[in-house]
Amino acid sequence: MKTPLYLGPREKTVEESAKPKIAAPPDASQAATGPQGRRSIDRLCIDTIRTLSMDAVQQANSGHPGTPMALAPVIYTLWQRFLRFDPADPTWPDRDRFVLSNGHASMLLYSMLHLAGVTAVDDRGEPTGEAAVTIDDIKHFREIDSKCPGHPEYGLTSGVETTTGPLGQGCATSVGMAMAGRWLAQHFNRPDFVLFDHDVYAFCGDGDMMEGITSEAASLAGHLMLGNLCWIYDSNRITIEGHTDLAFSEDVAARFLAYGWSVHRVGDANDIERMAEAIEIFRRTHKVPTLIVAESHIGYGAPHKHDTSAAHGEPLGEEEIRLAKRNYGWPEDAKFLVPDGVREHFRRGIGRRGHELRKAWLARVEAYRARHPDLAGQLEKMQKCELPDGWDGELPGFAADPKGLASRDSSAKVQNAIAAHFPWLIGGAADLAPSTKTRLTFEAAGDFEADKYGGRNLHFGIREHAMGAIVNGLALSKIRAYDSSFLIFSDYMKPAIRLGALMGLPVVHIFTHDSIGLGQDGPTHQPVEQLISLRAVPGIVTLRPADANEVVEAWRVVIRLKHQPACLVLSRQPLPTFDRKRYASAAGVARGAYVLADAEKGRPAVIMMGTGSEVALCVEVYERLEQEGIAARVVSMPSWELFEQQDRAYRDSVLPPDITARVSIEEGSVIGWDRYVGSTGAMIGMHSFGSSAPIKDLMKKFGFTPEKLLAAAKQQIARAREKAA
Amino acid sequence: MKTPLYLGPREKTVEESAKPKIAAPPDASQAATGPQGRRSIDRLCIDTIRTLSMDAVQQANSGHPGTPMALAPVIYTLWQRFLRFDPADPTWPDRDRFVLSNGHASMLLYSMLHLAGVTAVDDRGEPTGEAAVTIDDIKHFREIDSKCPGHPEYGLTSGVETTTGPLGQGCATSVGMAMAGRWLAQHFNRPDFVLFDHDVYAFCGDGDMMEGITSEAASLAGHLMLGNLCWIYDSNRITIEGHTDLAFSEDVAARFLAYGWSVHRVGDANDIERMAEAIEIFRRTHKVPTLIVAESHIGYGAPHKHDTSAAHGEPLGEEEIRLAKRNYGWPEDAKFLVPDGVREHFRRGIGRRGHELRKAWLARVEAYRARHPDLAGQLEKMQKCELPDGWDGELPGFAADPKGLASRDSSAKVQNAIAAHFPWLIGGAADLAPSTKTRLTFEAAGDFEADKYGGRNLHFGIREHAMGAIVNGLALSKIRAYDSSFLIFSDYMKPAIRLGALMGLPVVHIFTHDSIGLGQDGPTHQPVEQLISLRAVPGIVTLRPADANEVVEAWRVVIRLKHQPACLVLSRQPLPTFDRKRYASAAGVARGAYVLADAEKGRPAVIMMGTGSEVALCVEVYERLEQEGIAARVVSMPSWELFEQQDRAYRDSVLPPDITARVSIEEGSVIGWDRYVGSTGAMIGMHSFGSSAPIKDLMKKFGFTPEKLLAAAKQQIARAREKAA
Repeated sequence: MKTPLYLGPREKTVEESAKPKIAAPPDASQAATGPQGRRSIDRLCIDTIRTLSMDAVQQANSGHPGTPMALAPVIYTLWQRFLRFDPADPTWPDRDRFVLSNGHASMLLYSMLHLAGVTAVDDRGEPTGEAAVTIDDIKHFREIDSKCPGHPEYGLTSGVETTTGPLGQGCATSVGMAMAGRWLAQHFNRPDFVLFDHDVYAFCGDGDMMEGITSEAASLAGHLMLGNLCWIYDSNRITIEGHTDLAFSEDVAARFLAYGWSVHRVGDANDIERMAEAIEIFRRTHKVPTLIVAESHIGYGAPHKHDTSAAHGEPLGEEEIRLAKRNYGWPEDAKFLVPDGVREHFRRGIGRRGHELRKAWLARVEAYRARHPDLAGQLEKMQKCELPDGWDGELPGFAADPKGLASRDSSAKVQNAIAAHFPWLIGGAADLAPSTKTRLTFEAAGDFEADKYGGRNLHFGIREHAMGAIVNGLALSKIRAYDSSFLIFSDYMKPAIRLGALMGLPVVHIFTHDSIGLGQDGPTHQPVEQLISLRAVPGIVTLRPADANEVVEAWRVVIRLKHQPACLVLSRQPLPTFDRKRYASAAGVARGAYVLADAEKGRPAVIMMGTGSEVALCVEVYERLEQEGIAARVVSMPSWELFEQQDRAYRDSVLPPDITARVSIEEGSVIGWDRYVGSTGAMIGMHSFGSSAPIKDLMKKFGFTPEKLLAAAKQQIARAREKAA
Repeated sequence: MKTPLYLGPREKTVEESAKPKIAAPPDASQAATGPQGRRSIDRLCIDTIRTLSMDAVQQANSGHPGTPMALAPVIYTLWQRFLRFDPADPTWPDRDRFVLSNGHASMLLYSMLHLAGVTAVDDRGEPTGEAAVTIDDIKHFREIDSKCPGHPEYGLTSGVETTTGPLGQGCATSVGMAMAGRWLAQHFNRPDFVLFDHDVYAFCGDGDMMEGITSEAASLAGHLMLGNLCWIYDSNRITIEGHTDLAFSEDVAARFLAYGWSVHRVGDANDIERMAEAIEIFRRTHKVPTLIVAESHIGYGAPHKHDTSAAHGEPLGEEEIRLAKRNYGWPEDAKFLVPDGVREHFRRGIGRRGHELRKAWLARVEAYRARHPDLAGQLEKMQKCELPDGWDGELPGFAADPKGLASRDSSAKVQNAIAAHFPWLIGGAADLAPSTKTRLTFEAAGDFEADKYGGRNLHFGIREHAMGAIVNGLALSKIRAYDSSFLIFSDYMKPAIRLGALMGLPVVHIFTHDSIGLGQDGPTHQPVEQLISLRAVPGIVTLRPADANEVVEAWRVVIRLKHQPACLVLSRQPLPTFDRKRYASAAGVARGAYVLADAEKGRPAVIMMGTGSEVALCVEVYERLEQEGIAARVVSMPSWELFEQQDRAYRDSVLPPDITARVSIEEGSVIGWDRYVGSTGAMIGMHSFGSSAPIKDLMKKFGFTPEKLLAAAKQQIARAREKAA
């Protein structure tokens, strides 16, 4: 399959007629009586966005006024004339998505949400009838518990489609949304029933364009021919350190042509007719994504800060605001002014269009439900974040097996067993599926490709960072999404993982090759600090199962999460499958830690605890101690976070405070284990980078042997006895 | 300044004559008697590289044979005909650099190091006369303590210029090396004394091309017009999941033209004359970097694995190796064969050329020393990683000041005071210098730009990941380099930070805006887990100073590090400058933690410990407790790593085991603080993401107030008394 290099602005395709016609733009010559006499209603709306943004930043004495001033005409044109979005129901599934990747320009979005009259929704996504953003919220921009925080936050402010601020994240997330749009269309649409046909728009700036994650995402979007994706690039030639000449002189348009995008240039961001033309052409372009380069002026209209980096990240100052308002023909002393007619104008534009589109959609869904009840049921469950019936009906169980299998392999079996009954569980790897074993292998799964958008196996290419943001974008469209790489490369995608946690998205990150146990690829590939780094991210549930049956239980936990990302940490090397008749059931995984093997008689003299591949060492040493008549306990501890959620009684039953002889063992940084071994316990872990060698040699070199663990356990017992004596 | 889009292969510049002429290539028609009769010496050398690589991977039963087989002709052409590198002294400062960014192809490099007869160097960089890689080392590829680990490791194997494996890192590091080359030339070269004029070559593959870090680095290299940089892109159209059609169909050449690079295509990687022509043209191109796209066949010559992903990451198998050797006209049963004449051929090529170039260089340096003793002295100190005399001669001291100043501001003063006496301390920020305050402000410092390579202020653009790798590249050329961003964005550059730690490079990462204390930018910008993530990386020294005088001492520590990266973690908000007459000297910073304020009478009833901005809270509560007649101790703990290096006696003197009433306070994840507060202590920290609000509100919301700390301290005292009673 070849992506044509440049399909150009005049590209038309046969599907063109499939897209509904855009409502005619309101007559721009229809003037309204504004504060300074007659002026076009367009200008009035645009300058309202500008002045609200300037005033809010000034009032907060903090924020970024320059970009909202520059892009007000662009957001106005997009929302008022094109966006298929109903302010009365901002989570309607087939709405167009709008992403503000240059999230520091948050006032641009808040102003728009306010003026368009977007309603708030409750936790279930139901409209409450309250305004998402009131003028009072805008007056409390950047204040504590405000609906208008410094950067847009998903879940906090209705109408914010994704949290942005860290540059590039919005762009890459929008690619995930566009992929979701394509997948949803392919999965749900039926003859006469076009349930999904929305577009995804993202605003981005020079910073987005410089970040590597954006390059990754753009390359993939071009490859996948995402004709439903449009980025509008605010080319203002100014960054924080000064003019882009300091560090950024590439030809962005040529770069995007190389990615297979269509590119248009709008020479003046204030030219709303030219912008409308470019967006119109995007809507007629179906086979490639579109980049619109909008040449703009940061701080537009502010006489001293226009085109300077001073307009970027600080209030303009009262006097400069006054002068800018004078330039706009605005009352200089008015603050937070929304002239008469502005809200009404939006109501007649985006409001009416959105309402009609949604009404028609709801009617279509009604008829669809009658004709395709099963699919309609799926759609409903998806939207409510519910699980399909029978998703866990074929979960495997694993018989005891001293040889066992790698947890990446057992996970592959479990994942496939779930996915076969979970139609909207989709995902893939950053070019490592044969190694991470995350491919859905049943025939119906298929591959997601440019011409086959219904496939469930995604191919992200060697682009971990974009992958992490793309699964966020899929999850924001209610798809249950997973991604996969080696644990070491979680570092490459950390900012996206974090953002998913901040948004509370139930994505699944599957990380294999989870320790020095991966062997000969050596220290560049052997994680040491990655596990603790993920554990430290608020909201994430990390799980490092010890054997195949723990993998089953880990997946049970993961699939049930609704508002948290999970990191599933798996081994490359085989792990013995424990005899669950002899030891405890793996169901304890759900509580984060559990007693896997316990003293046969009396109280244990020592507790050995660990995760993943090291639990087998604990069990081996447990057996040796028991043979020597020493009572011991093994605690398998796949998830710190889940364990911390248990009540004190349970935690103390697993780790009784009076048993101070404790050893932890984990092939990673020991940081944090103090919490569980106490100040007198022993920790076996990694204190350096790993090394390239066969696994057997590495275990010896770094001290992950039964002998070492046995010695530590005995030393702990001796110490505890000495203290007690 | 504008970068021309495309200067093309025929670009010539006036500087052309400045570059020394390349030695004529050995006569390719001069045949040698090889194992299969007469064949060209070129083919013989190339097939030796191929077969050594295949044999080593097979023997290790692990590794990546396909790319060495494909690229053997390319590395042969580059090293034998062009590379200005003396195998007898692989750390000669003006050598050309060779980076294998596709580090999994490590056998390609090891074979070359062996055949070219590269010598080992000791810790001081002095040649030992031993071989860097013996045939025996190759036979022990990927074994424990081998000189030939799975991926090339800097410092372990002489001739390896940088550690590679995580894709994209080598490419970005090579940009740092090329920037170093330009800076060194501008700083040291004088009329008649061209001390620095080397080129930097990097091999890269499809994975490198997909990674965002490579895009960032390539964009910056184009911007900076690094005509001394040449990437050779192995376009084999195969990745681990299959054909690049699965995920990668962009026009790479067009993309690089957009970055301002010159691009050449070599249609067949086996065509060494065409490759030589392309490299020759690179050497005549001075104003833009060069990309050579080499179309290759992974697993070249292996009848069943040629052009398949099966050739990428696993041994070919004995039979396939036999068939490949038959294809090459090689003795099928010979293993690790180096035919007669091969080593000699390299000695006559790269060996002789390198020797002559280095000899001439050494003579030039001798004369230079006489004419420019000061510069020659700098050069010598740099090469030995020594510090310039008087670097700390003007370090400021800061008087007590309850209002104080932000540690980013005090750091700016200290950094400038050092830099003024440290000519090869250079660096910059990812477009945040006005916020991180890392600009060198004295006039002589200047900016590093495409036409002014002697400047010391670098502008990385909004490209954190490339920045991290670029400072590694600078450090590998013996420049003391720093970079800078907000602490939250350490996530964006983590893989490069880690690689710097693995290589033991003394780079300085300056991270400001170090907590929720940054205020209104909100949770997307407020670090929570970043500090612990950096602390968990082996080898890094993190420092979070509490006031301006601790900043001075932190810089003292940082500058003296020779083999470790440092992360300097600084505040956005003002921190009071402690009265060092009343409290202890800040010199304790060097020991990681020290008693800042202690009980005036008797033993302290409680220890309060913290880092950075939270130490002032500890001091405030200390004063209140003292007023109430309660003896307390404040431990300032800027660096866990340095504290852990102290002996037990010192550690126990700071945190006496018998004082169990302890509270830690840090505006970050509490993970790891258990170690210092013990199992009964209290930890005040972040248990969630932050929030967008003015700092005062945030301190209250998240509990960083004197009241909260005071209550925790008193509770600890009560608990300890209860227990003692």
